[in-house]
Amino acid sequence: MTTAIDVWGDYFSIAKWQAVVAEALESGDSKPIANINPNDSREFDAIFLGGGAAGRFGAAYCRALGGRVLIIDRWPFLGGSCPHQACVPHHLFSDCAAQLMLERTFSGKLWFQNLNDKMVSIKNIVELFRNGRTGPHAVMNYQSKEQLGLEFVLNAEFSIVDPQTIQVGECQFQAKNLVLALGAKPLVAEIPGARLKGVFNSQTLVENLDYEPANTIVVIGGGKSAIEYGCFFNATGRRTLVVARHQVMPMIKDVESRAYAILMMEEQGMEFLENAGFMAIQGDSQDKVKSVSIKTPSGIINVDTDFVFLGLGEQANSEQIAQILGLETGEKGFIKVNRHMQTSLPNVYAVGDLTGPPMEMFKARKEGVCAAKNIMGQVSEYKAADYPDFMHTHYEVCWLGLSEEEARKRYGNVKIMKLPPDNPNGFDVGLPAGDRMMLYLMAKPRMSGFQKLIIDGDTRKILGAFHIGYGAKDGFQYLNSLVKKGLTIDDLADMDELFISPSYFIQLCRLRAGDPHFKNM
Amino acid sequence: MTTAIDVWGDYFSIAKWQAVVAEALESGDSKPIANINPNDSREFDAIFLGGGAAGRFGAAYCRALGGRVLIIDRWPFLGGSCPHQACVPHHLFSDCAAQLMLERTFSGKLWFQNLNDKMVSIKNIVELFRNGRTGPHAVMNYQSKEQLGLEFVLNAEFSIVDPQTIQVGECQFQAKNLVLALGAKPLVAEIPGARLKGVFNSQTLVENLDYEPANTIVVIGGGKSAIEYGCFFNATGRRTLVVARHQVMPMIKDVESRAYAILMMEEQGMEFLENAGFMAIQGDSQDKVKSVSIKTPSGIINVDTDFVFLGLGEQANSEQIAQILGLETGEKGFIKVNRHMQTSLPNVYAVGDLTGPPMEMFKARKEGVCAAKNIMGQVSEYKAADYPDFMHTHYEVCWLGLSEEEARKRYGNVKIMKLPPDNPNGFDVGLPAGDRMMLYLMAKPRMSGFQKLIIDGDTRKILGAFHIGYGAKDGFQYLNSLVKKGLTIDDLADMDELFISPSYFIQLCRLRAGDPHFKNM
Repeated sequence: MTTAIDVWGDYFSIAKWQAVVAEALESGDSKPIANINPNDSREFDAIFLGGGAAGRFGAAYCRALGGRVLIIDRWPFLGGSCPHQACVPHHLFSDCAAQLMLERTFSGKLWFQNLNDKMVSIKNIVELFRNGRTGPHAVMNYQSKEQLGLEFVLNAEFSIVDPQTIQVGECQFQAKNLVLALGAKPLVAEIPGARLKGVFNSQTLVENLDYEPANTIVVIGGGKSAIEYGCFFNATGRRTLVVARHQVMPMIKDVESRAYAILMMEEQGMEFLENAGFMAIQGDSQDKVKSVSIKTPSGIINVDTDFVFLGLGEQANSEQIAQILGLETGEKGFIKVNRHMQTSLPNVYAVGDLTGPPMEMFKARKEGVCAAKNIMGQVSEYKAADYPDFMHTHYEVCWLGLSEEEARKRYGNVKIMKLPPDNPNGFDVGLPAGDRMMLYLMAKPRMSGFQKLIIDGDTRKILGAFHIGYGAKDGFQYLNSLVKKGLTIDDLADMDELFISPSYFIQLCRLRAGDPHFKNM
Repeated sequence: MTTAIDVWGDYFSIAKWQAVVAEALESGDSKPIANINPNDSREFDAIFLGGGAAGRFGAAYCRALGGRVLIIDRWPFLGGSCPHQACVPHHLFSDCAAQLMLERTFSGKLWFQNLNDKMVSIKNIVELFRNGRTGPHAVMNYQSKEQLGLEFVLNAEFSIVDPQTIQVGECQFQAKNLVLALGAKPLVAEIPGARLKGVFNSQTLVENLDYEPANTIVVIGGGKSAIEYGCFFNATGRRTLVVARHQVMPMIKDVESRAYAILMMEEQGMEFLENAGFMAIQGDSQDKVKSVSIKTPSGIINVDTDFVFLGLGEQANSEQIAQILGLETGEKGFIKVNRHMQTSLPNVYAVGDLTGPPMEMFKARKEGVCAAKNIMGQVSEYKAADYPDFMHTHYEVCWLGLSEEEARKRYGNVKIMKLPPDNPNGFDVGLPAGDRMMLYLMAKPRMSGFQKLIIDGDTRKILGAFHIGYGAKDGFQYLNSLVKKGLTIDDLADMDELFISPSYFIQLCRLRAGDPHFKNM
């Protein structure tokens, strides 16, 4: 590591980091960026391999507890795949979907331009992301170095010498513990033609897209990633066909909430082929996608397209490491850990997406924290459970706890509060509607959202909550914490709502509170 | 009331209510709409005069406790001024401001139309609201009648015979208690020319606007209403000058948060004249506004305009009622009540905006509930305190608890966590950014928001929180409840965040949790 860039002791502003990261990414120069305290002679308590959500938060926590840690990452920034290829671009695309749905709905009305039958460039939006992503990278590096005082080696290929020794270039680093936080990547599909040009996943889309997709897109998969990207493609004005082996969006357990989400997608023109059998992607003479064949109960369907998106889930970045260290792995290469985050090797921990689902930020970060605690002698256990969840369609869809159907299986006196209420208009009602929903409320009421609260009528405790709309995501984080502590409709009725909230849970509960035998609403 | 429309016993769908309400509003027909149970021979426990937030929620709670109540309202719908002239149009206009700021920022880029130097019609947006508002009215009537089983007489002028007797047409209604829930209305300004044509407040804007304002608007006032409407006018592409006798937005106590909010407004072209002295509005020969004169330290400024907006606060709708009943009132006609919501007369209660600030929905509703409890024999006290708050600029601005400055006066070891962090770029950083902020994050980072958490470093308790951006409003409702119960940074660090949240409080706390002497962030 004699050729490393040594940043220790120099103040690096966010702007300076942005320049350094952009330069490293553009040049492809693999000169490591080292931030190591030469005056600290202590052995490292842990080396974190990977500085994404799990590694960076674990390292920060280790240091907060007084430990010395080193993060090693192959990228020139901390934060991992999230801001580079995963969550952040997905959120950008979902924001574009929300924005485009609004503009298409009001096309030619009020001040809105006419977008009818107009396609919007996917390539331009991808390029916007590619050019803008170094900003968040820079913030993460700044925060890690200047605010958290973390030590790290970035832009660095490493090799494992033994479970206590990591080699970067000519330099060896030793630590009492090793924490593997190497993340995951999109599953490669076992579909004929999956390696043709024009077949993308969430990662290759942002890295490799270099042409403008034509007017038909096939999305393979029915989970979060498939639907989220599918809605974006649809919103750009392209025919979008989602092909799933089973159901789409099985994670939304509440039947009504899922139905509303699907109805709104269909009204935007999304097409779904559920329970699709064998699929194959055909290429032309240049190995470029030209069509997809899908077996359905009514025969084979052929769709001409130059763009196929695979949203089939994730597999662990564990191939080499598991082999070298001889770690136990499960399906898709996920590394097996106990509740202390320990692998099958003593003093080797694994955290984050590398250990398997849920592939969510909070889970990765909390596993990192759990490993850090154990390393620093605070015996700690963690297993993701009872967490709130969300996904994007053109909307933000949030949920926590039980669906109505799940609740009715477990409780004898389930009560429901929802908007729109059960009524002959069905969804054609302009409530719920909070901020960023008001144009829909006024002109296209059925598009203003859906929400539902599921309650045990006996204990009056909240069992579950669902919201489709905008602006409730932050609330679900805190609401979930309250629900886990036994929140009742009377507690909710006693809170101070901010009008007009995206979710009307407080208000609806207050209208029913006081009645020992409250009814549905 | 022999000529009343009797709706008791008939099922009224939301669609049917919409038609009935629209017909009553358009025709101006004052035939009352009565929903009174002819089979209930009990005396009314309370008559609620006014079926807005305070009256409707109070009545619902009274009924939930087993009481019999009657609501009488002059409008053909329940819900009061909120969905008709106040909160709902304000939210629609603020949504338009957010949307227009985005479109102007990206004017001519990506798929965005070119809005540079283009004015958008205010009249069309006001008309959209006027035509759309019967939807929410219908939901409220449906909910009140079909779901809550409330009895009411709508579209009805009433007179007070005595504190137990209310007359509507030829009909008299008797009740054990009277609850006054008549709301408030915009203060009429004591400014020369305030009654000229072309001078509006939030109420007259939605009712009376019948021309397209020209390219300069003067807003008088510096509080929520003035700023919220001012940002909307600005976003439509008009020069907007906000003239305040003192400071603008004094309710945002955190200096940095307020500075960010003001900076963002100034970057949109808003102009502020603070500490303005004497003002006068001049009219032309048809009594139509033509200019405004404002005394400033550097002399009199004259601004030509055909549209002046007064955002000067509210006064109680108490003139007649206070006189007839001989009730004690305070400034601006607000009716004096004790913590049981009782006026100076036994068995006469007053709730909601009629009793004075804060003029917020939760306060009105909870006062209604408090009165209901006392009427039904559950001795209850209420005084709005420690509530979360918000206002719109082009953004949603939310806050709770103490500002940094207030906290430093009371606590010796105040810690701060914020985004963007203190850094030489100032606000030019693309974090925080959650949903509906991603385009700004990628292309105009400084517009992606500001947030701040204020913590007592000794007890580790959260003292205050501020957020300027989108999507955090729902969260502040629940976060406030947690903060009042003693939420610490360690509690926050243990929650399950939904990535990318509009507010990063959980994440920031987790990066610092574990350290007994955590630093600012």
